[in-house]
Amino acid sequence: MAFVVAKFGGTSVASPERIQMVARRLIASKQAGNQVVAVVSAMGKTTDELVGLAKALNEDPPAREMDMLLSTGEQVSMSLLAMAIQARGYKAKSFTGWQAGITTDRNYSRAKIEDIDADRIKREVERGAIVIVAGFQGLTEDGDITTLGRGGSDTTAVALAYGLGADVCEIYSDVDGVYTADPRVCPRAKKLDEICYDDMLELSSAGAGVLQARAVEFAKKYNVVIHSRSAFTDTPGTLIKEVTSMEQAVISGVAHDTSEVKVTIRDLKDQYGIASTVFSALAGNMVNVDMIIQNVSEEGHTDLTFTCPESDLERACETVERVLPQIGAREYVVDKNIAKVSLVGTGMKSSPGVAARAFTALAENQVNILLISTSPIRLSIVVEASQCANAVRCLHTAFDLDSDQVFEETQLSAEEIAAKMNKGR
Amino acid sequence: MAFVVAKFGGTSVASPERIQMVARRLIASKQAGNQVVAVVSAMGKTTDELVGLAKALNEDPPAREMDMLLSTGEQVSMSLLAMAIQARGYKAKSFTGWQAGITTDRNYSRAKIEDIDADRIKREVERGAIVIVAGFQGLTEDGDITTLGRGGSDTTAVALAYGLGADVCEIYSDVDGVYTADPRVCPRAKKLDEICYDDMLELSSAGAGVLQARAVEFAKKYNVVIHSRSAFTDTPGTLIKEVTSMEQAVISGVAHDTSEVKVTIRDLKDQYGIASTVFSALAGNMVNVDMIIQNVSEEGHTDLTFTCPESDLERACETVERVLPQIGAREYVVDKNIAKVSLVGTGMKSSPGVAARAFTALAENQVNILLISTSPIRLSIVVEASQCANAVRCLHTAFDLDSDQVFEETQLSAEEIAAKMNKGR
Repeated sequence: MAFVVAKFGGTSVASPERIQMVARRLIASKQAGNQVVAVVSAMGKTTDELVGLAKALNEDPPAREMDMLLSTGEQVSMSLLAMAIQARGYKAKSFTGWQAGITTDRNYSRAKIEDIDADRIKREVERGAIVIVAGFQGLTEDGDITTLGRGGSDTTAVALAYGLGADVCEIYSDVDGVYTADPRVCPRAKKLDEICYDDMLELSSAGAGVLQARAVEFAKKYNVVIHSRSAFTDTPGTLIKEVTSMEQAVISGVAHDTSEVKVTIRDLKDQYGIASTVFSALAGNMVNVDMIIQNVSEEGHTDLTFTCPESDLERACETVERVLPQIGAREYVVDKNIAKVSLVGTGMKSSPGVAARAFTALAENQVNILLISTSPIRLSIVVEASQCANAVRCLHTAFDLDSDQVFEETQLSAEEIAAKMNKGR
Repeated sequence: MAFVVAKFGGTSVASPERIQMVARRLIASKQAGNQVVAVVSAMGKTTDELVGLAKALNEDPPAREMDMLLSTGEQVSMSLLAMAIQARGYKAKSFTGWQAGITTDRNYSRAKIEDIDADRIKREVERGAIVIVAGFQGLTEDGDITTLGRGGSDTTAVALAYGLGADVCEIYSDVDGVYTADPRVCPRAKKLDEICYDDMLELSSAGAGVLQARAVEFAKKYNVVIHSRSAFTDTPGTLIKEVTSMEQAVISGVAHDTSEVKVTIRDLKDQYGIASTVFSALAGNMVNVDMIIQNVSEEGHTDLTFTCPESDLERACETVERVLPQIGAREYVVDKNIAKVSLVGTGMKSSPGVAARAFTALAENQVNILLISTSPIRLSIVVEASQCANAVRCLHTAFDLDSDQVFEETQLSAEEIAAKMNKGR
């Protein structure tokens, strides 16, 4: 018997049939003796439809009203789920974010949870109800509805698990856990039984779509155990928690990310203040810069390269164009055809030679490295997009991650792959 | 300059185009120097769609969750309207029922407003915003969302007008005011400039669909002036208020209602307790009995007739069937083919001879009266459905209500008629 918070994303509640599946699953957990709180996202395409309506009335919809509008999505799915559970003879009650005591700051559309008062939810759970809470939303101190932005429902679930003192926060999705690499790219990838918060954070940031980095960060801070598992099977998934085993694998996994682009500013003056000028301007224009590389200069001139999400490219180009004269640079070039491949593992810190082993493996497989960047527990390289799969596979093999079983690609349908790629709410 | 609360029903906000129309109208009122609060219903068919989803998951959806679900409808339309107003450069803010300080009792799906704390709305209006409030909903003291049931949005508007001390509560619909009769049935009907609460209440109860009796009752209790007007034209409509003019017309209007059926129990024993048995059983089975008529008995036996909405007929028949043996009655007959026609007017009290004049007019026009029932300010008769229009017209003429102008039926489209007949939220 345990206290479980279970989060289901938009695809898991996309239709009445899927809502029935979730209802059955929650009831099974209740029957097994657990205390159960569920967190749900909006049904499938609801959010897109609401955004469409808003844009028809206001090209630049005001954020407060947009949050008011979008927060209805979860209110619909949560009440439907409560009805489905009641139809099967079990007690269920749904609560909006504000009813669940979730207080946020005033940053509409990307609010941060500031406080959680889970007393009401706790009371209902103790009375025997399966409680359903709307993910992705909260209330400001002034009584205005907010939404939490990307990964918001995962964060709601982790925050509630903390506020309720739950034993585990189950996050259900289309995939059955965290893999050592994306099985679609690396058929010998294997599912991890557990992974520590830091490695999961690095994997999420490096492109693994299974969990939102933000929720993992929250879980780490408050020591909430996450169980990432499939909404469609009963097999156990991956536990994300503080791993205390003495001997950890050097490398937890290999992530890849093809959503970034590379911008190189050519022939700029190598003098102090240049980098500051460039990156202050980029930050001011809301460009999320990822990697930054500058080589040693030749004759007082150098090249400066950075990567950023392709969605920020237009703003990045505008910015660079504008600062070119100030930094005395000649030109800049954009390369969209890249992939970032990252080796992640807390064990890296205590294992010298990881970089050498990685570069040797890549060289033996004719993978040309364009950029390199490291953190204490991550080694990222940028390669040509066409060499991405090759790089992932040879690193996976080189660090003894290969499974004995070959992953069958047919296990994931086209729809599931699309859903997996879509890092939604 | 006035403080105006303006209510728009579901058809007025059914599409982005219609929401734009409402936005323009509210801005025009603001430009004219008014302080403006709008109350909106859910967009067109939203409620039906949500009910459909609920029924797919639970044949008998729990009331608390149903209210949670349905209340999202107004939250969508209100935020969209606020966006549309802001797109035109005016300040606007939307508020749910609970944000607007509307407290109700715990009767889900037909909650009654118990208290209203309009301070927040008032503050926003004083800051210059056009405030939009979700109709049809409130919050219990325990923090659960409720809906107000039929006529709920009209009631929200009237309650807010009272709470805010507004000068007028404008209720916009597809019709441009209150008529002396339904113009589709009586082409010489004329629009009333004003009508007193009591007459409006009787007309609403007697079948006039333009305003919900419940909202009028609320307005009477708190002396709120209602302005019933068209959402599609700028012509003034009808004011519903305490009419103080010395000389009032004897008759305010003629209403008709074809939604009732007549049930006659034949040959029952004429002894005490019989009527009590019948109508207690009917009430216990949720049958809304309207008229009750019992004639003098012949040789200890009599007939007992009542009318009720056709939607309650099935339950009525069940009940009567069950009590027949107890009351020693032989059989009962149902007549669905009836219409109730009502003369309404506060002036009736001080004008003897209204009934005589009415019956004479009906006789001269060969209208056969099946049942008669009266109140101090209303005279209702039941006739065969086929004679309904004839009865309305001859009474309208007999009481000098005819307009010089003949109403052109083409003024109402089929859609508008359907909307008018639909006494929605």
